[in-house]
Amino acid sequence: MKTTTDSPFDALEKIFHEPNRLAIMSALCAADGGVPFTDLKTSCRLTDGNLSRHLKVLEETGVIRVEKSFVKLRPRTTIHLTKTGFQRFNEYLAALTEVLEQARQATGTERSKSRLPAFGKLAPA
Amino acid sequence: MKTTTDSPFDALEKIFHEPNRLAIMSALCAADGGVPFTDLKTSCRLTDGNLSRHLKVLEETGVIRVEKSFVKLRPRTTIHLTKTGFQRFNEYLAALTEVLEQARQATGTERSKSRLPAFGKLAPA
Repeated sequence: MKTTTDSPFDALEKIFHEPNRLAIMSALCAADGGVPFTDLKTSCRLTDGNLSRHLKVLEETGVIRVEKSFVKLRPRTTIHLTKTGFQRFNEYLAALTEVLEQARQATGTERSKSRLPAFGKLAPA
Repeated sequence: MKTTTDSPFDALEKIFHEPNRLAIMSALCAADGGVPFTDLKTSCRLTDGNLSRHLKVLEETGVIRVEKSFVKLRPRTTIHLTKTGFQRFNEYLAALTEVLEQARQATGTERSKSRLPAFGKLAPA
C-alpha cells in the first residue's frame, strides 16, 4: 500500500459530486440551449425548493446562469450552462472516470461480466 | 426531456459516494485480507480522527468489520471488508458507471479523446 501524492479522489469537485447536482449538470449538458426550470425539475425529479437550492449553489460558483423572462405575461426561468461550467464539469467527469477505474480494478470487476470491457488488464494499485 | 422512473442518480448509495469513503472502500477491496488502520490512514491520506469517523459510519452499516488485537503487547486495529460490503460496493460502482456513462454522453466526451474507449456508441438518452 502506497501513499499517493495526487489522489484522484481529491480531484472530485464537491460541487458536482452531489447526486442531484450531477443529474442537473448532465441534463443541462444534454440540452442544446437553456433548459426551462420546469423541465429540469421533471427531468431530475426534484421539488421546486430542492431544485432552487441546488441551482443557487451552482449559480454562485458561476457554472450556470439563471435567466428570468416573461412569456405571454407569465414568468419563465431558464437555466443555461456557462462555458466555465461545461469545462469544469468535464474535468470532474475525468476525475470520476479515474476514481471509478481505480475502484473497479480494486474490486476486480473489470475482469468479470462488465458493461465496460475495456478497462484493460492493469495491475491492481 | 423525459421523466425517468428509475434514475441511476438515485441508485448512488450515499454511504459510498463521499470521496474519502470511496477511497477507503477501494483500498480495502484492493487488499487481499484485512488492512491495518495505519496503512489505511496513509493510503487514503486521512487523519486518525477523519478515518475513525468514516470507519464508524461504514461499520454501523455492516460493510466493514473492525478487529482489535495485540501484537507484541501493542494494540493493532485491522479493517476487514465484509461480504455484504463487497457486494454493495460493487452495486454502487455499477450505478456510478451508469451515471458516468450518461453524463459523458450528455457532454459528448465519449466521442472525444477518452481514457475509456469502450463506453460504446449508445444513443444519447
